[in-house]
Amino acid sequence: MAKPSPVSPLAPTHVPAMPAIAGVRLGTAAAGIRYKGRTDVLLAVMDKGTTAAGVFTTSKCPSAPVEWCRAVLKGGKAQALVVNSGNANAFTGKTGKTSTKLTGDIAAKAVGCKPNEIFLASTGVIGEPLDASKFNCVLDKLNETATPDGWLDAAKAIMTTDTFPKVATAKVKLGKATVTINGMAKGAGMIAPDMATMLSFVFTDAPISAAALQALLKAGVADSFNAVTIDGDTSTSDTLLMFATGAAAAQGAPKITKASDVRLKAFVKALQGILNDLAEQVARDGEGARKLVEVVVEGATTKASARKIAMSIANSPLVKTAIAGEDANWGRVVMAVGKAGEPANRDKLSISFNGIRVAKSGARDPSYDETEVSNAMKNDKVQIKVALGLGKGRDRVLTCDLTKEYVAINGDYRS
Amino acid sequence: MAKPSPVSPLAPTHVPAMPAIAGVRLGTAAAGIRYKGRTDVLLAVMDKGTTAAGVFTTSKCPSAPVEWCRAVLKGGKAQALVVNSGNANAFTGKTGKTSTKLTGDIAAKAVGCKPNEIFLASTGVIGEPLDASKFNCVLDKLNETATPDGWLDAAKAIMTTDTFPKVATAKVKLGKATVTINGMAKGAGMIAPDMATMLSFVFTDAPISAAALQALLKAGVADSFNAVTIDGDTSTSDTLLMFATGAAAAQGAPKITKASDVRLKAFVKALQGILNDLAEQVARDGEGARKLVEVVVEGATTKASARKIAMSIANSPLVKTAIAGEDANWGRVVMAVGKAGEPANRDKLSISFNGIRVAKSGARDPSYDETEVSNAMKNDKVQIKVALGLGKGRDRVLTCDLTKEYVAINGDYRS
Repeated sequence: MAKPSPVSPLAPTHVPAMPAIAGVRLGTAAAGIRYKGRTDVLLAVMDKGTTAAGVFTTSKCPSAPVEWCRAVLKGGKAQALVVNSGNANAFTGKTGKTSTKLTGDIAAKAVGCKPNEIFLASTGVIGEPLDASKFNCVLDKLNETATPDGWLDAAKAIMTTDTFPKVATAKVKLGKATVTINGMAKGAGMIAPDMATMLSFVFTDAPISAAALQALLKAGVADSFNAVTIDGDTSTSDTLLMFATGAAAAQGAPKITKASDVRLKAFVKALQGILNDLAEQVARDGEGARKLVEVVVEGATTKASARKIAMSIANSPLVKTAIAGEDANWGRVVMAVGKAGEPANRDKLSISFNGIRVAKSGARDPSYDETEVSNAMKNDKVQIKVALGLGKGRDRVLTCDLTKEYVAINGDYRS
Repeated sequence: MAKPSPVSPLAPTHVPAMPAIAGVRLGTAAAGIRYKGRTDVLLAVMDKGTTAAGVFTTSKCPSAPVEWCRAVLKGGKAQALVVNSGNANAFTGKTGKTSTKLTGDIAAKAVGCKPNEIFLASTGVIGEPLDASKFNCVLDKLNETATPDGWLDAAKAIMTTDTFPKVATAKVKLGKATVTINGMAKGAGMIAPDMATMLSFVFTDAPISAAALQALLKAGVADSFNAVTIDGDTSTSDTLLMFATGAAAAQGAPKITKASDVRLKAFVKALQGILNDLAEQVARDGEGARKLVEVVVEGATTKASARKIAMSIANSPLVKTAIAGEDANWGRVVMAVGKAGEPANRDKLSISFNGIRVAKSGARDPSYDETEVSNAMKNDKVQIKVALGLGKGRDRVLTCDLTKEYVAINGDYRS
């Protein structure tokens, strides 16, 4: 194991106070799954009638908990979420499936519901069997002691190589009631199956049907978690779940059955804000990251084309090492545009770093001041903007720089 | 600029003696394009009647010399090749085009041929105008002094961040004559537009028509240069050219007009050997590389599917940092298989490192010995073999590990 890293210099300076969500109780415990001296299990207990939605990794080799969640999601109902860190229960064959079934049974018994109302997520080492019997007494006890508070503790219990817990919250009007949305995430470098994976859980007391919740979540993920990359490596375990207890109906919140319901306008905006916030925090905790990088591509033929080009730039090791070196190396950006395979015309291309245009019309911009650019690159947030000059397609992707620390975190820990 | 790196520990221990090729003369010079105290221009002069073939980068933002070569290749005839290092003449707008035209004119005048029989390649910094007037006296003089020897000098003149020159040679029967094939390449980390790009030039005295030569080269590149990746970043300048002087016809070599001609059997094999050899040398000189990595995927549904999965593994920063850490981290290989998007069944998957199977049937192989694997990973060549168990598709890709030196070479040089 790597030595624990110091907190990322890009960590948010303000951590919001997390309010309670009516119908949700949280408990954490140290079950000794892999780590010592820290919590590694989270139980979230939700009131009867809670609806559920989820989006998952596109990996062709997903973890056992991902397969479990996909199956139970068909029911659309949730009464508990069990998350463990330290072991991803991925690539564990039949043992993995047995393990999720046992965990589901233990949790269902503890909470008093059916196993298909239990959601599971695991993060940590891959390929190691997960001994689900460790949950046996733990979940019983957690169900008894779980409280509406403790959101930050919950976010800490699900961390792996994360250097800080990630939470976000919002209150918003739904009808005449005020509803709350709380979210948490873990992921540092994402996407590192031996060390980390992206998990995120969002809770609300708004009364929203499972189908509507699923549509909202799917729409919300496109420009948040799906627009973040640390190293281009996709986890076997990426999981984003959302739960709606409906408790706000007692305060007069209308029951929502369609994602297109106009009364959801403020809610949708707040949810998007939380997903964006958590996704940015994941980029800010990228393994070894010293700079947050925002890649903006505009003037593409379509938004999808802009996304593909932005991802090509954000995943380029040469672009990312240049940012680490505080070098406004637009040649490498051209390279990454060129390799994306999307429509691009060299002679119409402009590139800016933190608002300073360094290249235009297929050549170096003769007017830029090297010292000004060098100073701008010292900022801990770097925006790379590429204007293609072809159409109206625009997109934005977040990433971080590629440092020697990334190599150390992912390459040194066996030595 | 980075400090010159010491020679890669993966450099071949044997450098072949390079024979002359009838109809080819070589000359190198120090034109002061960017570097000091070293040669940076290569002129290869070829006899009238030489045929030409070429394959180029798939980048949508190719360099000016790539666009020049694509245009002149239509004629299929070559009398000279001019290569410079230190400046890639890429993303230089109209200036770049003017520069290639001027270089072509200067070379054509020096050699005594038409500009559309001149091939150009440039490698080095991107975005800087290339002052072609520097070739003015140089090419005249080089044409006068060029000799059939000096292949290693030629390979040195085209280097950028390469730590060793890359050459390969073969002699083979064509009809009753013995023909020669000589090749050279440059590229270290490939694919780094500010520092390096992949260039390769192959010469033969075999009498082969331009159309047949093009078909041979295109077929030969698929499993050699197209099966190598250092960092997944595609250069704006990748260029592979092949020239056939036809001089061996005087020794009785048959004139070949079709790539499918059965008399070419030995020639095709030898050409493939040279392209494979040069491509492997590029991987061995990968920026910061300490280990050569061969990724073999078998049991895929098709060869193309196997290639895609092998490339996903070979380009994964997490797999590459694990190899740098001498860690047989098969969890990351599973991740890379999963993210490739190709047919894969976790429960049928087996993974070996240097012949030692560490995972089978969707779980850790209980029989492997951790000490044995750890020792195997200390080797400077690591083979990752993935058996998918789905079909007969098989492919192989070469890459290298991702080390802190890679980050230093590409991130530190401005500091």
